[in-house]
Amino acid sequence: MSLYRYKLTIEYDGTPFHGFQYQLGLPSVQGELEKVLPYINKGDFAKVYVAGRTDTGVHAIGQVAHVDLKTNYESFKVLQALNQQLRKNLKEQTISVTNVEHVDKNFHARFSAQKRFYLYRIINRIAPTALNLKRAWHIYTPLNIASMNEAAQFLKGHHDFTSFRSIECQSPSPIRTLDELSITEKKEFIEVKVSSKSFLHHQVRNIVGTLKLVGQGKWSPNHVKKVLEAKDRRTAGPTAPPYGLYLTDVQY
Amino acid sequence: MSLYRYKLTIEYDGTPFHGFQYQLGLPSVQGELEKVLPYINKGDFAKVYVAGRTDTGVHAIGQVAHVDLKTNYESFKVLQALNQQLRKNLKEQTISVTNVEHVDKNFHARFSAQKRFYLYRIINRIAPTALNLKRAWHIYTPLNIASMNEAAQFLKGHHDFTSFRSIECQSPSPIRTLDELSITEKKEFIEVKVSSKSFLHHQVRNIVGTLKLVGQGKWSPNHVKKVLEAKDRRTAGPTAPPYGLYLTDVQY
Repeated sequence: MSLYRYKLTIEYDGTPFHGFQYQLGLPSVQGELEKVLPYINKGDFAKVYVAGRTDTGVHAIGQVAHVDLKTNYESFKVLQALNQQLRKNLKEQTISVTNVEHVDKNFHARFSAQKRFYLYRIINRIAPTALNLKRAWHIYTPLNIASMNEAAQFLKGHHDFTSFRSIECQSPSPIRTLDELSITEKKEFIEVKVSSKSFLHHQVRNIVGTLKLVGQGKWSPNHVKKVLEAKDRRTAGPTAPPYGLYLTDVQY
Repeated sequence: MSLYRYKLTIEYDGTPFHGFQYQLGLPSVQGELEKVLPYINKGDFAKVYVAGRTDTGVHAIGQVAHVDLKTNYESFKVLQALNQQLRKNLKEQTISVTNVEHVDKNFHARFSAQKRFYLYRIINRIAPTALNLKRAWHIYTPLNIASMNEAAQFLKGHHDFTSFRSIECQSPSPIRTLDELSITEKKEFIEVKVSSKSFLHHQVRNIVGTLKLVGQGKWSPNHVKKVLEAKDRRTAGPTAPPYGLYLTDVQY
């Protein structure tokens, strides 16, 4: 029997989920999607393949996944049906399918991805945030954006990121190429934007946790070069909290 | 005994509250503030006077209030103490005091206000929103921004806004002057910005509910002129939901 492959773009609020990946007995984005897919797959299970497995609390604006279904629906109908079922299942609809496209069998959400884009949001002011709780990292000491950008120059490009990957990271290689790493501010909001073909486990959050120390003046921008060269996770800053992180886009 | 007057700027997520105003047995922003103020007022009650009493579900980025306290503290200490107590009392800190200033006895949060600024956020796309639930109004039919701005021209300025005020509105006069009413879009987000010395009950939400019908092409921009002239609430559009509305600033 022939199957039809669909590319799904997904937005979610990571707060209520134990990450993207399915875990028995725990709420996950994959679990919720695989619960609703049988409605448009003649009642049968359909496995979700994803571009980037996000951790507990991490959000997505443009996560990408693919699924194979038994029926050749109009993509618009798949979008409507999935969102309708998600709305019924979830107390609040914290997962939304924002786009559906037909793709051929060569397309693989994870392996065909050419570039992944992340955004890390910081709110930098004395007062806590009421409207951005679980949506941004509140840092109350002033951050020097110029210093953070200076430090970022050492991390851009092709490097061994051993110092910035979680000790549980299972990637065979610590080498990655950061195409973009920029820090911008707009009033009290600071945005860290980063893109790469792929990332190591906790790489973005470890970079942000390190840049924060530079922004606070605790480390010089030059010190980040030494951290990178040390190839030792213990030399870098702490892991920034998950709730400031957003997977914004995946390019194919 | 002399009292010291403080001007407080307050941000809050309106979702968990039954509006700003104190209501016995129901969570309110005023209630939460009056619960923490005794900590810095020798244990005594201090009444909160506010610039704009927002309805259930309406948010604030820059609400303004004043209180009279028995002690002349540094304003920074008042900000820290109030936020600390709010954090202890609230399960999630959905109220934040973002600024504190000393003001003299002539200052009154409500009566001295010269201009109030509101923002109404719409997310205009087919897919529901996961990351802006309770933060924006999701409208899935496309809105024509040019038509909405054309209609807005009829509402700007000095008018009798009877058609746009709640039938429960208690203001002695239906006359108001809208200094600004603009609709802008940035990708799928639409922002309605409006400012006036003061507003009638539900005035902003009724204007947005009416402009939405124009944006959808159900009403012509010219029809809004007729609605205004009818001076009859039944002729205008429905009240837009509260969760898209933000009190952003108050000028004195």
